[in-house]
Order: sequence, then structure tokens, then C-alpha cells
Amino acid sequence: MNGRLISASRVPVRQSSVRAHNLALVLQTVGNSADRPSRAAIAARTGLTRATVSALVDDLIAGGLLVESEPAPRTGAGRPAAGLGLSPDGPAGLGLEINVDYLAACVVDLTGVVRHRFVTRTDQRVLPPAEALAALDALAARARFAAEADGLVLAGAALAVPGLVTPGGLVRVAPNLGWQDVDVPPLLPGLADLPIAVDNEANLAALGELRADGAEPSFLYVSGEIGIGAGIVLDGELYRGGRGWSGEIGHVTVHPGGRPCRCGANGCLEQYAGQEAVAADPDLAAGSLGIALSAVVNLLDLGVIVLGGGYAPEFDRLREGIEAELRRRVLTAGLAPVTLRAATLGSDAAMRGAADVVIRGVREDPAGWLARVQAV
Amino acid sequence: MNGRLISASRVPVRQSSVRAHNLALVLQTVGNSADRPSRAAIAARTGLTRATVSALVDDLIAGGLLVESEPAPRTGAGRPAAGLGLSPDGPAGLGLEINVDYLAACVVDLTGVVRHRFVTRTDQRVLPPAEALAALDALAARARFAAEADGLVLAGAALAVPGLVTPGGLVRVAPNLGWQDVDVPPLLPGLADLPIAVDNEANLAALGELRADGAEPSFLYVSGEIGIGAGIVLDGELYRGGRGWSGEIGHVTVHPGGRPCRCGANGCLEQYAGQEAVAADPDLAAGSLGIALSAVVNLLDLGVIVLGGGYAPEFDRLREGIEAELRRRVLTAGLAPVTLRAATLGSDAAMRGAADVVIRGVREDPAGWLARVQAV
Repeated sequence: MNGRLISASRVPVRQSSVRAHNLALVLQTVGNSADRPSRAAIAARTGLTRATVSALVDDLIAGGLLVESEPAPRTGAGRPAAGLGLSPDGPAGLGLEINVDYLAACVVDLTGVVRHRFVTRTDQRVLPPAEALAALDALAARARFAAEADGLVLAGAALAVPGLVTPGGLVRVAPNLGWQDVDVPPLLPGLADLPIAVDNEANLAALGELRADGAEPSFLYVSGEIGIGAGIVLDGELYRGGRGWSGEIGHVTVHPGGRPCRCGANGCLEQYAGQEAVAADPDLAAGSLGIALSAVVNLLDLGVIVLGGGYAPEFDRLREGIEAELRRRVLTAGLAPVTLRAATLGSDAAMRGAADVVIRGVREDPAGWLARVQAV
Repeated sequence: MNGRLISASRVPVRQSSVRAHNLALVLQTVGNSADRPSRAAIAARTGLTRATVSALVDDLIAGGLLVESEPAPRTGAGRPAAGLGLSPDGPAGLGLEINVDYLAACVVDLTGVVRHRFVTRTDQRVLPPAEALAALDALAARARFAAEADGLVLAGAALAVPGLVTPGGLVRVAPNLGWQDVDVPPLLPGLADLPIAVDNEANLAALGELRADGAEPSFLYVSGEIGIGAGIVLDGELYRGGRGWSGEIGHVTVHPGGRPCRCGANGCLEQYAGQEAVAADPDLAAGSLGIALSAVVNLLDLGVIVLGGGYAPEFDRLREGIEAELRRRVLTAGLAPVTLRAATLGSDAAMRGAADVVIRGVREDPAGWLARVQAV
């Protein structure tokens, strides 16, 4: 084992955790490489010895996390070394979303490629939570079947919900679904053998957007469906707030004394810029969004706003009205303009972000994955 | 030098920076102690050798940062060791504030005690920036004279301004002062020989409040003067935003189409809950504040709101109206109530926070201070 890596920490380190650390280091080095690095290149980049790298690479190949291939032949002298890449045939993440008027599932492999994608339009408002989740469980089973037919193994699942979720997967409130205190994991029996995470849909969508090409390190992601949520990304990290319930921009008051909201208050942004309101009056929607987004920029000094979910396809219709309000209401508008753009992933961002949470779990802890595979 | 401290870093460390690090470690250990620790106790707490601690302590005493005193005699056996404390007679911080209707200055010593405090009521709106700052320069000179009469040496000054400030001390906009692009340091010639920092007043007030006894690690600090600003503290750190211009809650829209604001927009919180508006109609002020604060809690999931500046003495008049709006408009109100409280430091928070920035600079870099003292 390499001394540099052990000395970086001040606490005693066991051999097993050194191996876990170094497995993750090698996997991340391959994952973050633009080329397909050789074992020697990995040794040079990590500072590990060649012998150590070779043993770790062998384990990662055996566990289905890396694949080795011959690089394109060189024109110069010398035998070209074999190149290593993330395996497209190993573990995969199952990303799920339940929203007011659709269910969605996708399978993303370790390289980040979406292998399967399913979307079903159904209105969850007319169903009790158990029935809505039974339909999602069936959709998840279809996605799982498709993944397994490809030879992929699901490493876990993550579910995006438009509501306030606790770390244990309890949905405290989802006003637009009409849910209150719904314990989700037991209602997805088809996934009982997998680790399952439940999180707010705007949070997961913001994470999906953060991982997309060209994403800025800090931005507000706004997800416009029937309800409206936001994910706040600061310096490459999702800001969750004290209890994980940040980003409830749909309930920011834009017209005090205005329309009643499902949450019990009135004048909430959701009542003026939710999907149905956008269809009815896009000018009012964009003006109301502009008021709420100006509040966010005044408070957080964010330079980028990303419109996602149902807003992405409506971006051109909404843009001008929002920008007019930002120019008018943001104190720093004349000093540092705000960039407004549509989400790269459109309305797939939440389920893509969910699948990505699973994949990142494997990439950050390959030792955990190897232990699971060996135990089977 | 002690091996543990060197090995904690992976980059090569020079002897001079090891000394600087260890000087800071010893000073912080004394500063954070409830008792007055002996040299032996410091060695035990830091892991440095006794000889190293003694040499460092001697330097810190010579530089006026520590004082050594006999502890209260013990009843048991053995000679009691001499105890060490921060010096109340060494470097001090000069905290300054310029606001719409007052100027303020305070001198805070290394132990955190306010040694001198000056407040002058004058209306800055009728003066050009150079004249307003000349009056502040005169007030700063009085504070400096008082500090030096005590034998204190000013380590630097920090100035709180109700506006958008760049790191170099340029005030880009201060709407309520009527300032635009005012380069502050050259207009304070009496402080030309001192390091001077300029920052937003709500930011400095939030830092002042954070350092006060019993402060929570995360809160929104709202400073209500003629204008209204906020400082956002997350996990013990001030959140500044992308350009340092976060917290402009005074320009959050609470009544679209409402009263025109000095910033050029209309319906800004400032027009409904600034100091003059509170005096005219405290119910409207509290309701408007409640709308804006609900937006903050919905967005940031903060559990504590601190009302400071001119709001602190009005707290009892404002509380009920704000809390009613929070209950009504915060989506999570039924799940996790928000604590509303008055600022501990009242309207002194900004200048206290400013002085504290100077003091913390010395406490975090005593080697820099010692080099300055030795060079004189």
C-alpha cells in the first residue's frame, strides 16, 4: 500500500479501509479520464505502485466495474498498453419519479448512459398513495426486467417525489399529490431486495442538471410541473437546508391576498406559474415567476437560473417576461446580469438525477459493491 | 517542532509556517479555554512539547497577545502553575458603521470586551459621500485616541456600510445613502496607516450575532434600519453569495405594483418595513416582514430568524404579526416551527461584528501581528 495515502489522514487506518479507499481512487481516476488510461498511467496519476494498481484493477474488472480493451494502434514505436474504461455491463442505477400526472423510470449504467426509459401518463391525484405506488412498482419491474435482459445488475433505486421527504423515505407532505406521512419503501415490494432512496424531485433534478455537461457550479434549478420546486446548488453541492426541506419556491408568496393554494396559504407562486397556469396565461406566469426568482437572486446572489421540468419546453414563451422582472427587481441587475437558461435534461432531470445518485454510490464505494457481488 | 502537526498536511511545510501555525494553535487554545491554562496544560491539549509551548508563549507574551498570572491558590499539595489568558492590553479592533441616520465606532480588545463606543446621530442622505466619510473619519480618530490612551494598539479597522461592497472596499451601490461607486478607504485618511476592511452592514451584524453567547449555527439575521438587509449564516459560516451580495431582503417584492422604492423597483419590503414604515404602521410592517421571511424559510429551510438593528427594540410590537404570516405561509410550519428572536447585540451588532473581524484576524494569524510589532 502506498504511504502517501495513509499519511493523509491523522486517524489510524485499517488495511481494509486503505483497500476501499484505493479501489475508489482507481475507479474515479478511470471515470474522470478523457482517455482510456493504462495501468501504468493510473499508477502515475494516483501515486500508487504499479503492482498495487494491477491488483486493484483486477478486482474491479472481476466485479464488473472496469473493462480493459486494446487502444487504437500507435504509429510510433513500442507496444501500446491496454486501456481501461468504466464497464457499461456491470451495475446500473434505477431512477424513479412519481409526479402529479406521470410516473417515470430509467436505467442508467455506470458510464452514465441511459439504457432504458419509461414514462406513463396517469393522474395520481385520484388515487390513494398505495395504488399510485403500486403502479410505480409495476413500472419499476418493467425497467428492472429490461436492465436484466441486458445483463445489467441494479445496484439500487432512488425515487423522486414532489414533496417534503425525511432521510428514511417518509413523505411528510406532498400537497399536489394529496399525500401526508406516506412511508414509501414498504409500498414498493418489487424493490424490497434493493437499497432505495427517496428524495425531493427538485433536489434530484438539480443534481441531475449539475452532472450534465456544461453545468455551472452554482445555480437555482426550478422544476415546473403541476407544483413548483427548486434545487439550490452552491459551489457544486446541493444545499438541503436544516431539515432537507429547502427550495420550496412554489410556496413563495407572489400576490398576497391572491389565489388560495393547496397548502392552505394564498398567493403562492404555484397558483400563478404551475403547469396549468402557464397554459392559461403565460404572461402572468412569467411575471409571477420573475417576482419569485428576483427574490431568490436578491437573497442568494446566484448568477444562473435553470428552468426545468415542464418549464424547459416552454422556455422561449417564458423567458422575456421573467427577464423583464429580474431587470426591474434584482438590486444588482445593473452590476451583474443573471443568466436564465432551460435545463439540459428537460423533464427527465429528476429521474436521471435519481439514477445518478445510485451510480455515484457505486463509484464512490466500489468496495461495498464488490462485497455485495461476492456475497451473492 | 511537533511531528503530528507537520504530517497533517501533504505539502512541504517550511519552518516559518510551522511556527506561524503553532503560534495560532497556542493562542486559540488559550482563547477557547474556560479556565486560564498553564503551559503544561497547553502542551497536553495541543500535543506540542513543553519546550515548544514555552517558547511560543514567551513570544506571544512579548507581543502583547497573552498575559500570565498566578491562579487562585490551591488547597491541595503542590505549587500551582501560572495561568495564561488573552491580553486585554494588546491589539484591539476598531469597528465602524455608517448608516443612513447615524455614525458609530467601537474599540474591542483581544478578549472581546468593548472598551469604547461612540454613536453620533446625523443624516447622511443630505451629505455627499466624502463629507459623510470625513465625519466618520473624525469619529474614528476619537475612538483611536481613546484606545491609545488605554495603551491599546489598533490592529486594523472594519467598516459596515448599508450597500453592495466589493472586496477592495468599493461601495457599488448604497441606495439609502444615495451612493454609487464610492471608493471608501481613500476617504478615511485618519486610518491610512491601518489595514481597513469594508463590508455590508447586515453581513457584519450577522457575524457579530454569530459570535455572541448562545447563537445558533444557522440563522437569518435581519437588520432593520431605514433600509433592510440580511445576513445568512449556514453552519457557522456567513453565506456571501457569488459576488458577496447576498441577503438583499429589503428588495424582495412583497406587494407587486406597490410603493416605489429608491432602487427603481416597486413593492420592495423596505417600503413597508423600513424604520419609518414601522413607526407609521407596525401591523403592515410586521405582515410585510412575515411575507418576506416566509419566502426565506420556504427557500432555505432555516429554523431561526434573528431581528436586529432597529427591529431589536421593536421586537415585541412586531413578533405576533410576523409569526402569524410564518404559520400561514411556510409550507413546513406544521412540521418544524421557526424560532423568531431579537438580536442579542441590538443595533450595535454591525460595529461589533466589524471590530470582531479585526480581532479574529489577529487571533488566527498572531505571527503576522508579531511581525508588525517587531518591525515598528
